[in-house]
Amino acid sequence: MSKKNRQVLLAKRPKGLPDDSTFQFVETDIPEPGEGEVLVRTLYLSVDPYMRGRMSDAKSYAEPFKVGEPLTGGVVGEVVKSNAKNLSEGDIVTARLDWADYSVAKEEYLRKVDPDAAPITTALYVTGMPGLTAYFGLLDIGKPKEGETVVVSGAAGAVGSVVGQIAKLKGCRVVGIAGSEDKINYLKDELGFDAVINYKTTENIREELKAACPDGIDVYFDNVGGEITDAVISLLNFHARVAICGQIAHYNDTEIEMGPRFLPYVLKHSILIKGFIVSDYADREEEGMNALAQWLKEGKIKYKENIIEGLENAPDAFLGLFRGDNLGKQLVKVSN
Amino acid sequence: MSKKNRQVLLAKRPKGLPDDSTFQFVETDIPEPGEGEVLVRTLYLSVDPYMRGRMSDAKSYAEPFKVGEPLTGGVVGEVVKSNAKNLSEGDIVTARLDWADYSVAKEEYLRKVDPDAAPITTALYVTGMPGLTAYFGLLDIGKPKEGETVVVSGAAGAVGSVVGQIAKLKGCRVVGIAGSEDKINYLKDELGFDAVINYKTTENIREELKAACPDGIDVYFDNVGGEITDAVISLLNFHARVAICGQIAHYNDTEIEMGPRFLPYVLKHSILIKGFIVSDYADREEEGMNALAQWLKEGKIKYKENIIEGLENAPDAFLGLFRGDNLGKQLVKVSN
Repeated sequence: MSKKNRQVLLAKRPKGLPDDSTFQFVETDIPEPGEGEVLVRTLYLSVDPYMRGRMSDAKSYAEPFKVGEPLTGGVVGEVVKSNAKNLSEGDIVTARLDWADYSVAKEEYLRKVDPDAAPITTALYVTGMPGLTAYFGLLDIGKPKEGETVVVSGAAGAVGSVVGQIAKLKGCRVVGIAGSEDKINYLKDELGFDAVINYKTTENIREELKAACPDGIDVYFDNVGGEITDAVISLLNFHARVAICGQIAHYNDTEIEMGPRFLPYVLKHSILIKGFIVSDYADREEEGMNALAQWLKEGKIKYKENIIEGLENAPDAFLGLFRGDNLGKQLVKVSN
Repeated sequence: MSKKNRQVLLAKRPKGLPDDSTFQFVETDIPEPGEGEVLVRTLYLSVDPYMRGRMSDAKSYAEPFKVGEPLTGGVVGEVVKSNAKNLSEGDIVTARLDWADYSVAKEEYLRKVDPDAAPITTALYVTGMPGLTAYFGLLDIGKPKEGETVVVSGAAGAVGSVVGQIAKLKGCRVVGIAGSEDKINYLKDELGFDAVINYKTTENIREELKAACPDGIDVYFDNVGGEITDAVISLLNFHARVAICGQIAHYNDTEIEMGPRFLPYVLKHSILIKGFIVSDYADREEEGMNALAQWLKEGKIKYKENIIEGLENAPDAFLGLFRGDNLGKQLVKVSN
């Protein structure tokens, strides 16, 4: 056990795309857990697009990160010191914790992970925040019915890949939108998507979508926003449902962008659009977790991880999300 | 009883704003009702903005009007000949019927109006399509809670004026947006709105809205779209609800207009946006009708009508909706 604790702080709020100057590494002493608290050694750290939002101080659903304090994100770690009743040394736990080698947390804030049920990293993916986001956004907002057509953007991402697979389990035609041939082959060949469109190489995304969705689009799960979303909205059916989960095309905007006005279309087609965040469903977490764990166990939801080694590479792993680098869930392995 | 039946036909589909060339007057024989049908003499005709949509043949929720056939709209009329079991001469009825002196309709298509319960014209307003639209859009989509702030655009129109009054009955702060001093005085002094903004004279609608809504906006009932809606959306609270009922700013657009992208804001604030049409609530019509009739009877919903005389003036009455002429529900009196 190293004597020091490396932390990654928010050095300053980014304008536009974050870069190296957004992050600052510091070394501190390893913190001591107080009464009812434990010391967690970080094993894996999750980097997710939503964190870009918390780097700004604009009014939002989530408390912004504070400048000069550690960034936080999904962590799977090992309890190495416990002053808590129900957690012991060696237990594997997950929670939103510091980007650091070590964090201290209250026991009630941590969820225990059973390492025998599934690889522990799945607690940051299929049975973690991305999986729950997919589950509630698709099923509670999208309400897909058998035989309907579901389109998901950012389809190869952590959330999108689960959305598409749940939609397949519900008997839908599933069309994904992604940005590389590798991603497209993975989604079609391994995850069973009915069609996948490469938005980077297509000459006309709307025409390609139209061909891939001969009966129109009933459900749209949006991770990206921008022109992809414009094209999808213009093909929505009467009474279609749109879950706005992400807008990665806009996270680094420095001003409000212009786009086609679609509310007249929304009116004519009695369309539902709902922005959401997984914490809207906090009281149903158990339900989602159980369903996802069951599907995972039965092999009905597959997954792929992209693991970068070393806390020092966490900023670059995060920035890669905006370059579209990752096929599969992007994780950072911090220690063994 | 005149010997001839004047009808107003759709002469051609308008591009942009309709004008006189959109309409054609013809004289036909008075039709004969078949078995189970009645002949209805038009007393009042309702003109409503949604009819602009049906003049186009773009895919929409409503069957488009056919070129060369009579326009149809809300009518209150008198049964003058009956081959139907449950309707007799002299009965007052309402339905969507021809823009004409006379229409023939099947009995099951007509709703009887009790002339002793309220003035018969209210069947085209408070207890008719506009009232039901206000009722379901506000209560089912907007779900206003006591103490919340509700903003309604097109506030002096048939739908908007009922929306604001129901929101007041639910204990909300109600802020209207309208386009003339007469309308503003009416909404404030007679209907009890807490604040009303004149979008035509304001220098900065967003700033004025912000001042009128110190706690932000929880519910937005949109009848207009365009820049007014842009301003309202940018002030919505976390978990706000938006009912898209009308987009009159766009009905005469000949191409898709550009506007600020607001889906990132919708995401950050977990906002719901729902386009709707009153027929989405066909199975709850009775509930809405009873509630509205009760409020009307108790004087809790007030109304004002703007009545133009003569079928020949129906096109102009309709076009006036887009000029913002009318204070109160626009009706055409066709006969006594």
